[in-house]
Amino acid sequence: MKSSVRTITWTGETLDLLDQRVLPDEERFIVCRDVEAVADAIKSMVVRGAPAIGVTAAYGMVIAAKAGRDAAEAGRLLAATRPTAVNLARAVERMRSAGGDAERQEAEARAIHDEDIASCVAMAEHGLELFPPGARVLTHCNTGALATSGIGTALGLVRMAHAHGRVSRLYADETRPFLQGSRLTAWECKKDGIPCTVLADSAAGTLLREGEVDLVVVGTDRTVANGDVANKIGTYPLAVLAARHSVPFYVAGPTTSVDLSTPDGDAIPIEQRAEEEVTHAGGRRVAPEGVDAYNPAFDVTPHDLVAAIVTERGIARAPYIESLLRLAGGKQ
Amino acid sequence: MKSSVRTITWTGETLDLLDQRVLPDEERFIVCRDVEAVADAIKSMVVRGAPAIGVTAAYGMVIAAKAGRDAAEAGRLLAATRPTAVNLARAVERMRSAGGDAERQEAEARAIHDEDIASCVAMAEHGLELFPPGARVLTHCNTGALATSGIGTALGLVRMAHAHGRVSRLYADETRPFLQGSRLTAWECKKDGIPCTVLADSAAGTLLREGEVDLVVVGTDRTVANGDVANKIGTYPLAVLAARHSVPFYVAGPTTSVDLSTPDGDAIPIEQRAEEEVTHAGGRRVAPEGVDAYNPAFDVTPHDLVAAIVTERGIARAPYIESLLRLAGGKQ
Repeated sequence: MKSSVRTITWTGETLDLLDQRVLPDEERFIVCRDVEAVADAIKSMVVRGAPAIGVTAAYGMVIAAKAGRDAAEAGRLLAATRPTAVNLARAVERMRSAGGDAERQEAEARAIHDEDIASCVAMAEHGLELFPPGARVLTHCNTGALATSGIGTALGLVRMAHAHGRVSRLYADETRPFLQGSRLTAWECKKDGIPCTVLADSAAGTLLREGEVDLVVVGTDRTVANGDVANKIGTYPLAVLAARHSVPFYVAGPTTSVDLSTPDGDAIPIEQRAEEEVTHAGGRRVAPEGVDAYNPAFDVTPHDLVAAIVTERGIARAPYIESLLRLAGGKQ
Repeated sequence: MKSSVRTITWTGETLDLLDQRVLPDEERFIVCRDVEAVADAIKSMVVRGAPAIGVTAAYGMVIAAKAGRDAAEAGRLLAATRPTAVNLARAVERMRSAGGDAERQEAEARAIHDEDIASCVAMAEHGLELFPPGARVLTHCNTGALATSGIGTALGLVRMAHAHGRVSRLYADETRPFLQGSRLTAWECKKDGIPCTVLADSAAGTLLREGEVDLVVVGTDRTVANGDVANKIGTYPLAVLAARHSVPFYVAGPTTSVDLSTPDGDAIPIEQRAEEEVTHAGGRRVAPEGVDAYNPAFDVTPHDLVAAIVTERGIARAPYIESLLRLAGGKQ
C-alpha cells in the first residue's frame, strides 16, 4: 500500500515540500536550498505532522552537511523549531550520531525516510484488527500521507481498513485553528475515495452521543513512558467524550514518537503558537483588533483514556509502562 | 445597567436589525419592512440568540398586522425559521393570543421587548452570588446584548459581575462554525472593557485542566422540565469537561426559554444547518469540493452536569423538575 501524495521529496540537492498551508486550494511546492529554509518550513507549518517533520529535519541536516555547515549548529536550529513532537529532536540526534560526510548523512536521512514509510504500513497492518466491518470512524487533525512520508499513522490505519472493507465513513474534526481536518484529511480522503464527513470540533460530542461512531483513532506527537499522549489540541476532549460514551479511543504512532525518558504527560513541553491563528479564520481576521488569544498547539491525553497504542512493532495496551517499554525500549 | 448595542430597533414602521453576520468588521443594519424580511433575517442569522429572536418575531407579527396580513400565516412563517429556541415559538404564540388590531399587537411586542430587557438585569442580579471575586470565567457562543434586547443572559451575568469586581477575565470559545465567540462576544467585551481571551473550542479542555477557570457560564435555547438544556453546539463537551475538572457549570436564561411541556432533552428538535457553514471559514471555502459536512446547530447538556440555572425569577438547582416548575410553572 502506497500514497500518491508527494509530501517530502529529496532531489539530491533540494528538499521540495508540498505547502500544506495552501491546500486544498493549491498544490504548491516550497523548494528548500539551505537549512534555514528547512527550519522555516517546519516552524511555519509548510510541513507538519510528527513523522513528517522528523524526516524533513533529517534532510535539513543533509543540506547543512553538503554546504559544510556546522552540524551542531544546524541541529540546534532545526530542533528549536517545534518542541512537542519528539520525532524531530530524535531525527536530529540520530543524524548527529551517524556523523560522517555529506554522503553518509544522506544515506542516514534516506534510511529515516524509508523506515517511516515502512512503519506506516506496519502500523496499518497491526491496526486492522481494531476495525469491525463497516466501522464509522472519528479522527482529529491530519495523520495521513501529509503528516508522514508514507500512508500515515491514524489515517494510514483508516486507509488500510477501508481497503479491507472495514470503514464505511470517516468523520474528520475540522481541527481549528489550522483546519488540518477539513483542509488536509478531507483532501486525502477525496483522493483515495474514502467517504468523509467534516464537522466542527465541538460537534464531535453530539456525534458520539448519538451512537454514530464505532471507534476513534488519532495520531501522537509524543507518547511518554506511562502511555500519556501529546497530540493536536482537541484530542483530550475527544478522549474524554469517547470514554463517556464507551467508544474505544485508539492512538497510532511509530516508536519514533515514543519518548520513554519522559515519565508522564505533565513533563511534555507544549508549544504555544501565534495568537493570529485563532483571531483569523480562512485567511482573514475574524476577532476584533486588540483581543487576546490562547493557542496551545497540543494537549495531553492521560493514558487511562487510551484503549490501545498502535506502533509499527505491534499494539501496546495497559499497563503502558510495561507494553511501551517492551515495544520501544530496545531502540532508546 | 444598560447595553449600548442597538441589536433590535423598532422604529414604529420598520424593524432595524444589526447584521451579526458581518460583525465586527462592519456595523450594518438590515431594515425589515415585511414579515418575510423578518423571517429571512432570523433564518440567515442576521439576528440570533434565543431571547433576541423571540423579540424579533414579535415585531414581525406587528409588521404583518400593520400590513393586514393573516396572523396565523405570519405566525407559521416566523415559527418555522428556527426550531430549537423555544422563545421564538412562544413569542409568536403570545402575539396570537393577544389578538386585536395593529395597535394592540404593537403594545404586546413592546411588552415582550421590555420584559426581555428587564429579565436580563434580574438574571444578572441573581447570578452575582455565583461569582467569586476576580473570577476567571469561561463561556461559549454569544449570550450578550447581541443575543437579547438587554445586557444578555450568560454575558449579562459576566457584565454585572465584572462591574462588581468579580470577573478578572472572560475566556470566550470562538464557537465554530459561526464564530459568535471571537466575532461577537469579543466585540461586546471590547466595547465594555472586559478583559477577554478567545480560544479554539477544542482548547477549552486544556484551559480547564490547567486550573485557569473558576466557573463556566453559558446561555440556553431551551431548558426543559428535567433541567436538560439545549444550547449552541459545543456546550455539551464543555459541560463534560467542566465536570471532570470540578469546575461549576452554570446556565443562564429567562423563563421564556424554559419549556416545561418537553420532558427531557431527547425530545428537543435540533436544527441542522447548511454544510457550507462548516466547509467555509472566514467567508471562504476551506474544505475540498464534494466533501460532506455534519452541522447540528445545538446540542443537549444533561441536567446532572448543570450546577445551577439562573432565571430572572431566581436560581434553580437540582432537582430541576421541582425548582423549574416553581420558577417557571406559573407562566406556562
